[in-house]
Formats: sequence, structure tokens, C-alpha cells
Amino acid sequence: MKNSAILLVSCPDRKGEVATIADFVYRHGGNILHADEHADEESGLFLMRVEFDPKDFDVPLSEFAEHFAPIAQKFQMTWRLAQSAHRPRMIIFVSKYDHCLVDLLYRHQSGELACEIPLIISNHPDNKAVADFYRIPYECVSVTKENKGAAEARIQTSIDAHKPDFIVLARYMQILSNEFVNRYPQRIVNIHHSFLPAFVGARPYHQAFERGVKLIGATSHYVTEVLDDGPIIEQDVVRVSHRDTVDDLIRKGRDLEKVVLSRAVRSHVESRVLVYGNKTVVF
Amino acid sequence: MKNSAILLVSCPDRKGEVATIADFVYRHGGNILHADEHADEESGLFLMRVEFDPKDFDVPLSEFAEHFAPIAQKFQMTWRLAQSAHRPRMIIFVSKYDHCLVDLLYRHQSGELACEIPLIISNHPDNKAVADFYRIPYECVSVTKENKGAAEARIQTSIDAHKPDFIVLARYMQILSNEFVNRYPQRIVNIHHSFLPAFVGARPYHQAFERGVKLIGATSHYVTEVLDDGPIIEQDVVRVSHRDTVDDLIRKGRDLEKVVLSRAVRSHVESRVLVYGNKTVVF
Amino acid sequence: MKNSAILLVSCPDRKGEVATIADFVYRHGGNILHADEHADEESGLFLMRVEFDPKDFDVPLSEFAEHFAPIAQKFQMTWRLAQSAHRPRMIIFVSKYDHCLVDLLYRHQSGELACEIPLIISNHPDNKAVADFYRIPYECVSVTKENKGAAEARIQTSIDAHKPDFIVLARYMQILSNEFVNRYPQRIVNIHHSFLPAFVGARPYHQAFERGVKLIGATSHYVTEVLDDGPIIEQDVVRVSHRDTVDDLIRKGRDLEKVVLSRAVRSHVESRVLVYGNKTVVF
Amino acid sequence: MKNSAILLVSCPDRKGEVATIADFVYRHGGNILHADEHADEESGLFLMRVEFDPKDFDVPLSEFAEHFAPIAQKFQMTWRLAQSAHRPRMIIFVSKYDHCLVDLLYRHQSGELACEIPLIISNHPDNKAVADFYRIPYECVSVTKENKGAAEARIQTSIDAHKPDFIVLARYMQILSNEFVNRYPQRIVNIHHSFLPAFVGARPYHQAFERGVKLIGATSHYVTEVLDDGPIIEQDVVRVSHRDTVDDLIRKGRDLEKVVLSRAVRSHVESRVLVYGNKTVVF
Repeated sequence: MKNSAILLVSCPDRKGEVATIADFVYRHGGNILHADEHADEESGLFLMRVEFDPKDFDVPLSEFAEHFAPIAQKFQMTWRLAQSAHRPRMIIFVSKYDHCLVDLLYRHQSGELACEIPLIISNHPDNKAVADFYRIPYECVSVTKENKGAAEARIQTSIDAHKPDFIVLARYMQILSNEFVNRYPQRIVNIHHSFLPAFVGARPYHQAFERGVKLIGATSHYVTEVLDDGPIIEQDVVRVSHRDTVDDLIRKGRDLEKVVLSRAVRSHVESRVLVYGNKTVVF
Repeated sequence: MKNSAILLVSCPDRKGEVATIADFVYRHGGNILHADEHADEESGLFLMRVEFDPKDFDVPLSEFAEHFAPIAQKFQMTWRLAQSAHRPRMIIFVSKYDHCLVDLLYRHQSGELACEIPLIISNHPDNKAVADFYRIPYECVSVTKENKGAAEARIQTSIDAHKPDFIVLARYMQILSNEFVNRYPQRIVNIHHSFLPAFVGARPYHQAFERGVKLIGATSHYVTEVLDDGPIIEQDVVRVSHRDTVDDLIRKGRDLEKVVLSRAVRSHVESRVLVYGNKTVVF
Repeated sequence: MKNSAILLVSCPDRKGEVATIADFVYRHGGNILHADEHADEESGLFLMRVEFDPKDFDVPLSEFAEHFAPIAQKFQMTWRLAQSAHRPRMIIFVSKYDHCLVDLLYRHQSGELACEIPLIISNHPDNKAVADFYRIPYECVSVTKENKGAAEARIQTSIDAHKPDFIVLARYMQILSNEFVNRYPQRIVNIHHSFLPAFVGARPYHQAFERGVKLIGATSHYVTEVLDDGPIIEQDVVRVSHRDTVDDLIRKGRDLEKVVLSRAVRSHVESRVLVYGNKTVVF
Repeated sequence: MKNSAILLVSCPDRKGEVATIADFVYRHGGNILHADEHADEESGLFLMRVEFDPKDFDVPLSEFAEHFAPIAQKFQMTWRLAQSAHRPRMIIFVSKYDHCLVDLLYRHQSGELACEIPLIISNHPDNKAVADFYRIPYECVSVTKENKGAAEARIQTSIDAHKPDFIVLARYMQILSNEFVNRYPQRIVNIHHSFLPAFVGARPYHQAFERGVKLIGATSHYVTEVLDDGPIIEQDVVRVSHRDTVDDLIRKGRDLEKVVLSRAVRSHVESRVLVYGNKTVVF
């Protein structure tokens, strides 16, 4: 399998960043495979993703930080180094609707998603069979109005045991506490079944039907404290008409949700997403 | 040129409407060219569009009403008869941005829009040259905070002289009074430069840029008293990315606006749009 | 579950067909739910699909034929009556690539496809596990250059035992004999992984990559004697760029193939497809 | 107006190119605005586009070549330097169909295309009025079977007087000689009204109608000696159905052709297109 190192950088925009980073990689024997950068005029931020082949890199990647530190300091960079050989650990949350879960598990098995799935968390037992089929541990933590706090505590304990790199809410219908959300900044990926910011909140297909829109959408975004308001990673739409009932919207929407969520997850897994303000760059 | 008669019907949904209407047309010697119908479960409404060749129709179309009256009464139908040979009269309102105007005029000239354009109204003189090129009368009525009422009165007088069947707001940036709007129910077609209901109101591309959406849209709808809230006729979207500035959104959006508005106008001109509640059927 | 009757008609185009059919349904107490028709000018054919609620129909549907015969004769109609309550029997053929199979089985289980799946035929054992998971019988008939005839004979015997209404080739990589194909006219649905008629034959994604196209496609069509030439039911495309390798095209294509094939199968199952010449109407 | 310098490079792929180029720009005081690169595995080619702000560049751009020469030599680079302030000269060829011409002229006037249009060449007088409106010189050179050679000679003379950087065939229906084509390698942009490689040659909408496709397309490509076979710059498609006649395909196709051609022209004008083999990278 191809192994590559991925350097993600964001810093105030000024001259020489591209040259300095490219030179650093080159000087140490790395071969740049892909380089993407973006300068955001509004915020004055510079964002970069450099993927390089570390085969002949003359510094062990475990010591990358100390060698890169002077550059990072000089340019006031926020940065991290990912490795494609390191498969991030993704925990999936799901309720009853199984289409996104089934889709993610299939893609994972077929090699489209280079991550591990140590655990599935659900508030319903319904999806255990498909988890078993794909041999992924499945834990059911039922959530009620009364046990909300206790349930989240139990979920937290389970999650902690599996050290996730990120969490995917694959149509998980429970609201997570701000405390929980803030523990995983830019690391909880949600799928909302509308073209945000239209139709925030509950029953978006019903809202769309009421409004008589000619397209419906789906949006994958990072979860923040504000409902359906986090940085958008991916969106798409599909055409509908007066012939479509709410049930048709829901059915057509399922296909959208699967595709949009899986693209977002794939981008996240491959370290292609950089957040700035409430927006994302997807390289 | 092909001449066809178009019967548009809406009524409470019950048995026998299709058969009764089809039989009426057939019995009088008409040949059905297209028939579309839709039963809306929520409202219990039945909507139908029947296009027929009246060549051998044994009743003059001018006397259609009295022959059709018994059926209309029996089924409590709201109905009207359009004729493709009758080119509806469309008055275009425009401000400075000319892309939708230029697009409509070109399509009109090239035969895509089977309507007359007796007049263009604008609050700016800028677009007179292109109106002249296409030989469409152009009247400039400047609107200020102070003269709003008087300006609308003057516009009303000009319009009245031209007996429009409908009005198109091709990026007209002035708010029309409720009085004016209510004079033309389901007969003012607007283009809004967002995927409604997202980004209602002013500067939608700036709003979209701020929110960091991955698609931008345009919406054509009938104007009602509530801003950007009328029945949607057509919508479409285009992909954007972090590389796109607000200016890029505006540029990409122009192409969307042109296509979406012209499709909506064409559907209206061809009597394909039926309104029910706050929604449309576009047959 | 909703039960409806679906009358599919094709005949030479002349006056009175819509009226006659609508009247027939109405006169016998049926309530028309949807009516779609199309007159093809080139061939002079009239095609119609009428879906009606037979609850109060005064003739048993088993005796529909004899009552409808005079009309059919008068208009020289080719016709058939389908019932939504009758779930057609679909046999799936698959080789190693499992994405279309898995997608069809999931949709079937989730209620999107109103059909039975009595059997899966494959020339490889690989997909037995997923067939077992969904509890669909799976028969493996390996095909080699030498045993081609015998293998097809064995497949034929297996199929015959299950009386399929139609067959879906969900990425089945063996060529079927003309004899076999002709036994199921307009009843074998294939998915080809290109935007036909571009890239007929083997390795279409490699062909597309070589040509440097900016979009790749997938096409679902009925199988005829001529390779990749049958009537097209559904097509779609997705954008690619220079960044995409052949493997990326294959991956992106999988999503296309799934969606395009499942839409075609759904249209077929719901009796929405009418073939005329080498084309289809999908109502 | 923003002035930027754009360096386009292609060379055999080996280590250090990004670093060397970025360092060269930086060392001389240039600020990199955008950098895009692509390594094509098949051909072993490395392609790069670097856009930088030359405000503080310490070498006059007119002397760029001699300073860059050692790098170019070392890496065996094919390269050129473009400047956004230099507006390339585009000559448009057109026959009778005017939609692409009108679209290009409008976009040019509205500032979307940063190029000069010194001349329009046509084999028909029909489009002179719109050329006049936009104040672009229009030369009519009628072409017949008999005068083909002489006509092309006359066209060549006219063109030469205007020193075009590139030529756009905006639905020009005459075949140009190989001699002519070879004089402008990768500098003649054509629009073909199909999704190439499907429906090469004449009357592609008629071919598409005959085949019964569910989408129609348009393709913009560089012209080579082989008909409709040059490197593809941009493509797009739109959905059609059995309801669309050939005339409808032609009408829907017009919108496609305009959008696809104008995107390709814009990419060419902004020096975003690099050709390798028979393909393009569009950065």
C-alpha cells in the first residue's frame, strides 16, 4: 500500500510560505506528490496541504516536529502531520435509519475508506445484524428523556476505550450535549437531510415538501454547539417535482445522504479538510 | 406555426374528471396532443393540462366557455383556455444588472419564447441600448425614497397602456407595493439569486459566501406580498468551492439566474404552470 | 399496501385514444390515479400508461381482457395490465463486482423495489455471503470457454424453476447467447459502465481515461443481440478531472452504476417503461 | 486591475520541481497567489501553474527568461510566462447559428473574458448586426466547394493582420484545412454539440435522438487534424426525455454549448489549460 505523509498548515498569509515548505520537504529528501494551497482574503489566512512520499525522507516522521518547529514558529503556523498508512479510528453513531450506516460499512469493506471502525454506537438494537455481518462491534445505549445524562456518560466510557480519531453521526437522532461536542472539535461529522441553511432542525423533507422546492439537498458538516450550523464539508441536491410525495423525497434523499456523507467522511479520512472560521477548504 | 388549444383545470379530486374532459375534447373533434394531470393528496385537488389540436374542433374556441360550462359546474372547476397562437404580452422590469434582460431578449428574438414584449420598464437608463437593438420600447422611471408612490403610479399608467398578460422582474431591485403585486396574482415572475428558502432578502451571494455553502442556487417564483416567499416555479444550483470569491459566486450565479428565469418564463408562456396553495405544478 | 392497476398501451396514433381509455376505466368504476401518454411523431405511435384504483372496478381484473378487447381491436393496441400488488420476480446475475448486487439487495429489503428475488446466479462463489445475509438463494455456475453452452443450459434450467418476470445483469461479465437473450425480449436489464454510445465494449473506464473526458457515465438498457446497443432506460454522469486515476474513475463509477441501475430496475418493476423501436418512454 | 504573472511548466516528473520553482519566485520577491501542480503517472510528466504577484519581483518580466533558463534547462522544462494584464487576442469564427457568438460577445463586454476580440470571421453576413452592436469588426468570407482554397487564403490574410493569440470556432460549420489547423496548435478552441466521443461528425442531436439517449452533451476541445478528436477542455450534459423532439434537443443544447464553450474560452484566456498527450489539465 502507498504510504504518504500529509502536512496540513494554516497561518497568517505572507510571502514565502510555499517556497519554505516545499524547500523543507525537498531538502530532506521528500518527493511532493500533491500540493494544494489557498489564501483566504477575508481572514488573511493561508492554508496548505502537502502530500509527499517519505521513502527517502532523511528524518524519521516521529521526529518531524522538532525539525519543522523553526519554520512553524517563524510563520506562526498551526499544523499537523498525517500519514496515509495510519488509518484513523472512526466511531459511527446511528439510530434506526440504516442507509448511511450500511453504505459506510460497505465502502469501508470495499476499501474506499482508509480507516478503522472499532465501534458502532446506537440507541436502538435494530442495526446489530448488519454490524455483525461486517464484524464491527455494536453497542446499544438506549436514550430516554430521563437517562440522557447517564446514557451519554456510558457512551463516553465506551468511546474512550476505543480512542476514536473522529465520530460520524450517520443519522443519529439524539442531541449530544455541548460538553460532548466540545470534546471533539472538528471531529464530529454529521449528515443533515437538507440543503443547509434551508430547513434547519426537524423533519426537513416535510419542510421542503411544504415549501414546494424543486430540488432537495443533503449537507455534511462538522458539529458545533449550534444546531445544524457547523462548517459545511459537502452538499448535493437532486431534482424533485410535484409528483413526489414526502415519501418520495425521503427515498430520493436517502441516496443523497449516503453519497454526501461518504464523500465528507472520505475527505476527512484523507486529511483533505481544513477548517477556517465557520468554513472549510476541501483540497 | 402550430396552433394548439390548452385547457387548464383545477378542481376537487373525484372520479371521472379525466374521462369527462377527454371525452368532451374528443366528442367535439379535438385531437389530444398532450395530457398531464396531478392529484394532490394533501389538498384533495385535481389539476390538469390538456393540449389539443383544434383544427377539426366543431365549436369556435370563442364559444368554448358556454359548451364547457356544464362540465366545469359539475366538477366545480376553476379553468381557463389558452391558445398557443395567442402570444401573451410580457412586460420586463429591470434595474442595472442586464444579464437576465439580455438573455430574455435574445431568446425572444430567436423564437424560444412565444410571447410579445411590448415594453421594458427600468429605474435606470443603462439598458436602453440593448432594448433599442432588439427594438423593444424602453421606459425609464427613476425611483427614489421620496417619489416611490408617484413612480409606481407612473409605471402603472405605462403598463396599463400595454395590457400585459404578465410581468417579469429580471433583476428589478425596487420593492413593489402590495397593491401593485395584488393586481397581478400569479402573474409576476421574479428571479431570486439564491436557493430559496435559504438566503432570503438582500445580498444572497454574500450570505452564501459567509455561510460557506458548497453549492449556490437561483429560484424563480411568483411574487406575493411576502418577500421571496411566493410559489416556486424553477430552481437550480451550481457547485462552488473555497477558491471562489464573492465575485466568482456572482459570476457563476449570473449563468444560473439566466437559465432558471428563462425556463420559468417559458413554462409560464406555454401555460404549463398551475398554482395550488403556495406551490406549483409545472407540466 | 396500495393496490393499483396499470394499463400499458401502444398503438398507431389517432384521435380518441385518451378519451376511449379514460372513459372505459371510468365507466367501470375505476379511479384514475395517474395518466401519462406520449405520441411519437416519427413512428406515428401512441403510448399510454394509466394507473387506476380498481377498488370499485365492476369487472374482476382477471376478466379485464375480454372487456377491453373491443377497444384494443378497434385501435390495434398492443397492451398489458399490471398490478402493483403483483410483485414481479427478478433474477439477478452477478460476477465478482458486488456493488450493484449489494445495492439492489439493500433497496429490496428496505422496500424501495416492489419485487421478489427468487434467485441470484453467479459465475463466482464470492457473493454468497451477502446473498445469505439477505436470505436470497444463490447459485454458482462457473463459466469457462469450454463449458459455455453447458453452463448456459444449466442456468436456463435453474431460471426456469423460478419463473422470472425479468432478469437483471448487475455487472455480470459473461456474454449471453443470442438464443438466451431472445427468450427475454425487453426483460433483461443491464448496466453498462459508460455513457453509451461512447465506450462500447470492454474496459470503458480505461477508454474514458485514455480519451481524457471530463465526465464519466453509466447506462442501463435492455439487452438485445447487439452488444451495448439495446433501448436505453436510464443514464447519468459524474464529473472527473485530471486528478482522477483510472481507479478513481472506477470508484466514482460504482456510485453511478448503482444509482442508474436501481432507477432503471425501479422503473421496470413499476411498469413505467415502454419500448418503441430502439428507444424507451419512461413515464 | 489586478496584474499577476502566470508561469506554466511541463517537464519529466522528478524530485524538487515544486521547491525549485517556488524558491525561484520567492527569492526574486514574487508572492505566490495560486499554485497548482499535477504529476501524470502514465506519461511521467509533471505539470505546474504558478500565479504570482510580480509587484516586488526584482527582475523585469521581460528578462524573466534568462533568469529562469538554468532551472528550465536542469529540469528539461517546456514553459511559458503569461501575464493577466496582457489580454490575449481572440478571433471568433462563426456561421449562421449565433447563440455562442452572442454569448461570447456579451461575456466579453461584461468583463468575464479578459481578452481582446479584434475580428469576427464568418461565411455568412447574418451576424454583422450583433457584431456592430458590440463594435467588433466583422468580415464575411463566403466559402463554396469551388473557392475553398482561395477563401481560406483570404481568411489567413485577414487573420494575420490581427495577430491572434488564439481562435474560437463558435459553431463555424466549415472544415479548415490541416495546414491551417497545424498553424495554431492548441490554439483553436471548438465547440462540438455532443458528449464526445459519442456522436462524432454531422448532426449530433439527430444522432442522439435516434439512439434514444437520456442526456445530451456538449464538448469544447482543441482542434487537431482528426475531426472531433482533439484534447477535451470542458464538457457538460443536460437531461432529456421522450417528450423532447429533435428541435427540443437543439434548443436545450444551445444553452449547453454556450456554457461549455465560454468556460473553455475563459480557462484558455486565464492560462489554466495545459495539454499533455491528447488530454488537458485545467487548473
